[in-house]
Amino acid sequence: MAVTDIATRTYDHSWRLDPIVRSLLDTDFYKLLMLQMIRHQHPDLPVTFSLMNRSRAVRLADCIDEAELRAQLDHARSLRFTKKELIWLAGNSFYGQARMFAPDFLAWLAEFRLPDYDLRRVDGQYELHFHGPWTHSSMWEIPALSIINELRARAATRDRGRFALDVLYARAKAKLWEKVERLRQLPDLRLTDFGTRRRHGFLWQRWCVEACKEGLGERFIGTSNVLLAMDADLEAIGTNAHELPMVEAALAEDDAALAGAPYRVLRQWQAHYGGNLLIALPDAFGTTAFLEHAPDWVADWTGFRPDSLPPIAAGEQIIAWWQARGRDPRTKLLIFSDGMDVDSIEACYRHFAGRVRLSFGWGTNLTNDFRGCDPEGGHALDPISLVCKVTEVDGRPAVKLSDNPEKATGDPEAIARYLRVFGARGHQRAAVEV
Amino acid sequence: MAVTDIATRTYDHSWRLDPIVRSLLDTDFYKLLMLQMIRHQHPDLPVTFSLMNRSRAVRLADCIDEAELRAQLDHARSLRFTKKELIWLAGNSFYGQARMFAPDFLAWLAEFRLPDYDLRRVDGQYELHFHGPWTHSSMWEIPALSIINELRARAATRDRGRFALDVLYARAKAKLWEKVERLRQLPDLRLTDFGTRRRHGFLWQRWCVEACKEGLGERFIGTSNVLLAMDADLEAIGTNAHELPMVEAALAEDDAALAGAPYRVLRQWQAHYGGNLLIALPDAFGTTAFLEHAPDWVADWTGFRPDSLPPIAAGEQIIAWWQARGRDPRTKLLIFSDGMDVDSIEACYRHFAGRVRLSFGWGTNLTNDFRGCDPEGGHALDPISLVCKVTEVDGRPAVKLSDNPEKATGDPEAIARYLRVFGARGHQRAAVEV
Repeated sequence: MAVTDIATRTYDHSWRLDPIVRSLLDTDFYKLLMLQMIRHQHPDLPVTFSLMNRSRAVRLADCIDEAELRAQLDHARSLRFTKKELIWLAGNSFYGQARMFAPDFLAWLAEFRLPDYDLRRVDGQYELHFHGPWTHSSMWEIPALSIINELRARAATRDRGRFALDVLYARAKAKLWEKVERLRQLPDLRLTDFGTRRRHGFLWQRWCVEACKEGLGERFIGTSNVLLAMDADLEAIGTNAHELPMVEAALAEDDAALAGAPYRVLRQWQAHYGGNLLIALPDAFGTTAFLEHAPDWVADWTGFRPDSLPPIAAGEQIIAWWQARGRDPRTKLLIFSDGMDVDSIEACYRHFAGRVRLSFGWGTNLTNDFRGCDPEGGHALDPISLVCKVTEVDGRPAVKLSDNPEKATGDPEAIARYLRVFGARGHQRAAVEV
Repeated sequence: MAVTDIATRTYDHSWRLDPIVRSLLDTDFYKLLMLQMIRHQHPDLPVTFSLMNRSRAVRLADCIDEAELRAQLDHARSLRFTKKELIWLAGNSFYGQARMFAPDFLAWLAEFRLPDYDLRRVDGQYELHFHGPWTHSSMWEIPALSIINELRARAATRDRGRFALDVLYARAKAKLWEKVERLRQLPDLRLTDFGTRRRHGFLWQRWCVEACKEGLGERFIGTSNVLLAMDADLEAIGTNAHELPMVEAALAEDDAALAGAPYRVLRQWQAHYGGNLLIALPDAFGTTAFLEHAPDWVADWTGFRPDSLPPIAAGEQIIAWWQARGRDPRTKLLIFSDGMDVDSIEACYRHFAGRVRLSFGWGTNLTNDFRGCDPEGGHALDPISLVCKVTEVDGRPAVKLSDNPEKATGDPEAIARYLRVFGARGHQRAAVEV
């Protein structure tokens, strides 16, 4: 006899909302690190973040109901950091350091809530902007992306039969576990979950993180998701993002100031953090230009996170640069996080073995790889390339060039100016899949 | 079609052990407060705690399997305070005070584990002793009691049909909710869960605590269970227990030192804690004697927790004593926690309205009241009166007289000596039900 708990079933079928984001800690750790610095540097700077769907063929406004999207965004706005969460942020060690977050920052977090949003349907897509002080609009990036990705997955699985769903998740679990089995062949692997923003859903991400913890043991060093790090006693991992150089560049008054922007933010960063948090993103306006003009002290940083060139090429370029500057790459750290999956992880691991310290941030292909799993076929559950980027800084346009013109963002005129200042040497066009 | 998650079902049917105690925080808050003080006063004092089943008619060794009991006790010994738990203890405020636990104490807790146990079957009962430094043996009290109570409940529910179980819990839930509905008629009620040691089971206690939180709102001020307080963002409640005066008394070298023991522990306590933590237990060796010989400064304490006289009589006696000492009872606090249930809570609430501040610790009748709920009838799920008390201090016998001779513990010769020193005035014999 199968017994159903009637109260639970009735509740399951009648609740008002199944919230996707249930905690302000359900975000990437680097947001909190950056936020602490942004609050010092630019406490009131107006910055707009905007959703960008690089997978234009997927008409998000046709598959996600607007009322549902608003209900989820409204729910996220109702959240506050809880007492237990603030205690944990205050008391936990991050990257081996106690008291990473200052008491005045934590007191400020206690009052934090997400600002309003600006949502419109335009031609089958959602235009979604977050205006407000940088300290606030920035905190929308991760919840907005995880809400939209999970709403898309929910829409795709709506009205499926129980067997179809059962087989779907069975295949996805089997698929992930095969990846885990391959990865655990790499004895010195250092792997992190970076998949919050692109996840199929919160519960699925949690399953994936727990599977990695059990299957990879010490090779799995943590997660960028602060809530999962707290709940599973894992390390919270992350450093900084493109929004830092993008905002600094947008504020530049002339071309000389623009050219110096990528290094000014590193100066600011190292005034706040040290050690393994000194990881630079080289590609905001092109890696080649960044390395060519970098002051010597940049080579003293712990490492780089190449994010848009093919990983082996990017790693070789950086290693050569360290050597040219007289630094020993074996003491340095490269973090690869751009659309990685088992093949590219294995390839990088083998290619760089013994030459440099390596770590991998595994995102979309960890937490949202349902390709080939859907018993009904089709691509409704394939991941899409959805980002949420700085678009405007105090009325000025924001730009990201990256090493891959397909990943560039900003209006064409501003992009042209940045290309004039930074050049385009080393840029390589490649399709963006996830 | 009813669908069963096959992996979950297989795991449910094949796991090695369903642990009853899964965290060292699954204990009463006062244990941690006392422990911090004990570690200062008596870091190495050998103290034995022993199980006592006051419900002799229930032959525990006949209903609880010894191997299961050992497996649960062994599992509890494998536990450590986790990083997240220690961070919460360090960072949370208790009774409105930050940093209640000193860093050196928390560092010591990080290394803590429960000591070995000494278990024997004797005549249908278990003899269960915990030897070791007081700091360690004391920490067995709550997990040992909750393990035995839950094993008894599991034994009683083993091999029941699904319907019988469903109806059992439906009735128990309905029964508790009726109590909640009555209690919420009392607008100024202050109620706390004190039911960890006597609970039917951990999951049932959690349900009860959550039901109180939802049903009683502000009237439910917290729980003595530290783990549930952390998980549900409730206040952790508790002050001190009889073990303090019992050990101090056992150490007394002569009758004069014995007579002064109850006040010496209060001195020690107030050197560590203040405010609403200054709650005295008056009945370790009789309330009448305690009040009669109490130094005047005892009347400056915040309140009392009468624990063995009928509550109204005890309250009146204490109020008269405060008045005789020139204190205003309306500024004082009485905490009733001896076998309370809705009738006695209502009676006390009405009797003392406006005359003294009141608070209730609700134990067995909150977390283990299945009387009349079992569809098979019988009393296998009725609560029993099981305690775990100090029995020996550095080779000397430990004694508790209490106001009710039925609750006295200790060997007859030692009890006789204590009665000679403290007298028996005011003692009242009454059956002990829970």
